[in-house]
Amino acid sequence: MDEARLQKQIDFIVEIDRLKTIYRQSFLLDATRHENDVEHSWHIAMMAMLLSEYSNEGVDLLRAIEMLLVHDIVEIEAGDVFVYDAEANKGKLEREKNAADKLFNILPADQAAEMRALWDQYEAMDTPEAKFAMAMDRLQPILQNYFTRGKSWQAHGVTARQVLDVNARIKKGSDVLWQYAQFIVQDSIKKGYIKP
Amino acid sequence: MDEARLQKQIDFIVEIDRLKTIYRQSFLLDATRHENDVEHSWHIAMMAMLLSEYSNEGVDLLRAIEMLLVHDIVEIEAGDVFVYDAEANKGKLEREKNAADKLFNILPADQAAEMRALWDQYEAMDTPEAKFAMAMDRLQPILQNYFTRGKSWQAHGVTARQVLDVNARIKKGSDVLWQYAQFIVQDSIKKGYIKP
Repeated sequence: MDEARLQKQIDFIVEIDRLKTIYRQSFLLDATRHENDVEHSWHIAMMAMLLSEYSNEGVDLLRAIEMLLVHDIVEIEAGDVFVYDAEANKGKLEREKNAADKLFNILPADQAAEMRALWDQYEAMDTPEAKFAMAMDRLQPILQNYFTRGKSWQAHGVTARQVLDVNARIKKGSDVLWQYAQFIVQDSIKKGYIKP
Repeated sequence: MDEARLQKQIDFIVEIDRLKTIYRQSFLLDATRHENDVEHSWHIAMMAMLLSEYSNEGVDLLRAIEMLLVHDIVEIEAGDVFVYDAEANKGKLEREKNAADKLFNILPADQAAEMRALWDQYEAMDTPEAKFAMAMDRLQPILQNYFTRGKSWQAHGVTARQVLDVNARIKKGSDVLWQYAQFIVQDSIKKGYIKP
């Protein structure tokens, strides 16, 4: 056993526990509280397992799930930024890159590089896996809103136009799921969960 | 698009949100609250990604991660049972089988069978993937205890002897990680986190 190597891995496993305390704007479906980044990450990994048949392109499912499990870890340092808050999104990538440098380098060098490559690929959005993973990441908060009658949209005065504009990139990962997302946004207008 | 099929998948994705409200005896590492099943599931999936080099046998990592993401879903219906509570563990498998029948069958039949096969394989513990996955599932609460100075062990008067007996099966998945687990239990005795 290489004890120094194992210790670095354990240090990282300990560090990422903090992601359980980074809360998002989305609510649990029972609407009792906001969900955290880890809950969101597990949920979208499960969605990837269940919805990969709708990906526009064939995907390496392991790679897509790894991206989804890892992609929010930078928010331990950089914090979660509400996707509809343009001001807060300024400088986001820079802050997240600094966080990635700091966090992934807790690991042994080979694994730090692997984690960073997963995160870079996700951000670059130019592989079938990244596009599909991003579609999961964008669809899930729409579901969390729809099934809580628009709770987070209403709290922030988000309009259907904004939801459709900001999430149109779901289409890059899945035409079918973008069609479904548009349907539930339209249905949300009809039901009064969101303003047009 | 097969709308009925997609609707069943969405129904399941909505249903499993409830796993975010099933709390365990383990604490977050900041010791502020108990962690829930989803947080535990994400953490052990990350551990599988990072520690697979220590598996006694070669593992299909996708299969192992899928098992870990899915294996606690039955607790939505059956509840979490503390591993050291012998009384509460009576009839556990029967309750969980009933829960699996109910929950996985929300999905289209082919995916219900896939989810059930993952869960059955995990429970049967006779593949390299299941043994390694189980080692992650058992090691993580030991880490959560060690790094909170034995908070959950102390709350329930759990002894080091019990921890070593109940978790000896980590060895079936990884000799190296069982050696490490034994080290931190011994160190916990030395530091006064747990009684021998």
